[in-house]
Amino acid sequence: MRGAVLYGPADVRFEERADPKIVEPTDAIIKVTATCVCGSDLWSYRGIQPVAEPTPFGHEYCGVVEEVGRAVTAVKPGQFVIGSFFASDNTCPHCRAGYHSSCQHRELVGGAQAALLRVPLADGTLVPTPGVPPDDLIPSLLTLSDVMGTGWFAADAADVRPGKTVVVVGDGAVGLLAVLSARQMGAERIIAMSRHPTRQTLAREFGATDIVTERGDQGAARVMELTHGVGADAVLECVGTQEAMMQAIRSTRPGGHIGYVGVPHGVALDGQELFFAHVRLHGGPAPVRRYLPELIRRTWEREINPGRVFDLTLPLDRVADGYRAMDERRAIKALLRP
Amino acid sequence: MRGAVLYGPADVRFEERADPKIVEPTDAIIKVTATCVCGSDLWSYRGIQPVAEPTPFGHEYCGVVEEVGRAVTAVKPGQFVIGSFFASDNTCPHCRAGYHSSCQHRELVGGAQAALLRVPLADGTLVPTPGVPPDDLIPSLLTLSDVMGTGWFAADAADVRPGKTVVVVGDGAVGLLAVLSARQMGAERIIAMSRHPTRQTLAREFGATDIVTERGDQGAARVMELTHGVGADAVLECVGTQEAMMQAIRSTRPGGHIGYVGVPHGVALDGQELFFAHVRLHGGPAPVRRYLPELIRRTWEREINPGRVFDLTLPLDRVADGYRAMDERRAIKALLRP
Repeated sequence: MRGAVLYGPADVRFEERADPKIVEPTDAIIKVTATCVCGSDLWSYRGIQPVAEPTPFGHEYCGVVEEVGRAVTAVKPGQFVIGSFFASDNTCPHCRAGYHSSCQHRELVGGAQAALLRVPLADGTLVPTPGVPPDDLIPSLLTLSDVMGTGWFAADAADVRPGKTVVVVGDGAVGLLAVLSARQMGAERIIAMSRHPTRQTLAREFGATDIVTERGDQGAARVMELTHGVGADAVLECVGTQEAMMQAIRSTRPGGHIGYVGVPHGVALDGQELFFAHVRLHGGPAPVRRYLPELIRRTWEREINPGRVFDLTLPLDRVADGYRAMDERRAIKALLRP
Repeated sequence: MRGAVLYGPADVRFEERADPKIVEPTDAIIKVTATCVCGSDLWSYRGIQPVAEPTPFGHEYCGVVEEVGRAVTAVKPGQFVIGSFFASDNTCPHCRAGYHSSCQHRELVGGAQAALLRVPLADGTLVPTPGVPPDDLIPSLLTLSDVMGTGWFAADAADVRPGKTVVVVGDGAVGLLAVLSARQMGAERIIAMSRHPTRQTLAREFGATDIVTERGDQGAARVMELTHGVGADAVLECVGTQEAMMQAIRSTRPGGHIGYVGVPHGVALDGQELFFAHVRLHGGPAPVRRYLPELIRRTWEREINPGRVFDLTLPLDRVADGYRAMDERRAIKALLRP
């Protein structure tokens, strides 16, 4: 088969790779129906997080089970399934507490930008849809593999509830889906930080009530103005830079929550500032698996349409174009079809 | 009157100071019945947090209202009252959210180690006891002004609940009262980190079920062992150093809570470690005022005896001996009687 491999900064190649095989009896092989480019991949694509060797790329996927190991009982060949970028057993204490992405036996799923994908711990990781989905649902279902679950976790970690005032820092696909999540959880006011017209439009479509174009401390000051000097009840940090994190902390009311899901790069938090800010901080790699059943239901019943974040669809062999478009912020998110 | 003044490192003097007067119509003057030495004062006493000029010292107090400004209506001369180290109006949005120590009009109360004390925003700050307390209740009531409320906030911020496994980092008075608080909130297992025999004994009396003498990463490793590799549900960080904070983070299960109340000194948190630890972090200056009514009730009805942390009682004119004893860790906490 052929798949995407990252060789170094801005060097993604679509090339021949060995077909994946069942290695452990708990594995499954799936035939990938759709995959996509993740904002978090851009850290490596840009060379900020170097790769040591050519690395099969991509970790978002949905598709049809092709083959299962002999210990797999919960999914069967022919089923359409979605899984997270972290394989998890769904039985260890961390999974039972809902933190599947910290599963005691977790494994990163990699190389999803290919025709076939090996998924470890298939019983714990993969969740089947109610049936084979119609084609127009594929983009939304694909988002549940990472980006939608991550936006949802940001809102959940920040305890978004009916009536609350929420700020979303970051207008990438995760930030936009954090807006959608906050709306689903009943937030009254959702302030989206964005200076990009097409992203502002989608943010409003997903439920944003206010758009703030300022950034950093000016952005925080604007949020303070909009909240009459009080600060937001919940801030969803969906970037991962020092500036975004400080903006989040300075936009939150004392006792308010920050849900942070942008993978931190070069972020250091000063203990004393955090202390006197009086905020609640929770985040990490989203436990996407926890949310899959509920988000599949909402998508299947067409209550949500997170697939709207894909504004570029390419055949998988043009994966390099997808990275380029996202790197240059020409696309919010690129969907790839093998 | 005479009161304690800090001149510089290890230089506390008990000297003549002007009697406090009503300055604002919302002020009260109280006659101090008891005051004490706070662990957080040791940062200045040790010169780690330098003082720019001679500074009236002490911020924990209880006593009898002597005089009130003309706008004060909720407390009256003759009443026995307790207040926090932060005066607060109890009406602003942050107070209404329970974060009195971030009150929009907060003022630090200072110079409590004296015969008389001016308390700003008296209506919002001071809470009267049901009557004039018997003398043996004075130490416990005094702790509600800071140290007990701070231990309680650590446990509350860490969401301690019945059945939970709790770790307390720090065996100072705050740490010991965090143990008592966790027990009151129904924790099943309370692991106190202490290598000091008399503090271990008091920790057990307050409800600790396990004592761990290791510190730092070894301490965290021991907690992991005791929790079968899972980590604690809640960790109460009552020190404020980098080592203590990292120990707390590394002792907490994914999705678990850290309540931190040690004023951070030189603490910097690495964003990526925090992210992958998956913990919830909340802390800050304890909103002691929020807890005063409930903690006065529990103390008055003798359900709790937080005054047990005082293992040294001195007349106020020997305040310098109190600081020395705490600095050298000869005393857990020194009570001072004017």
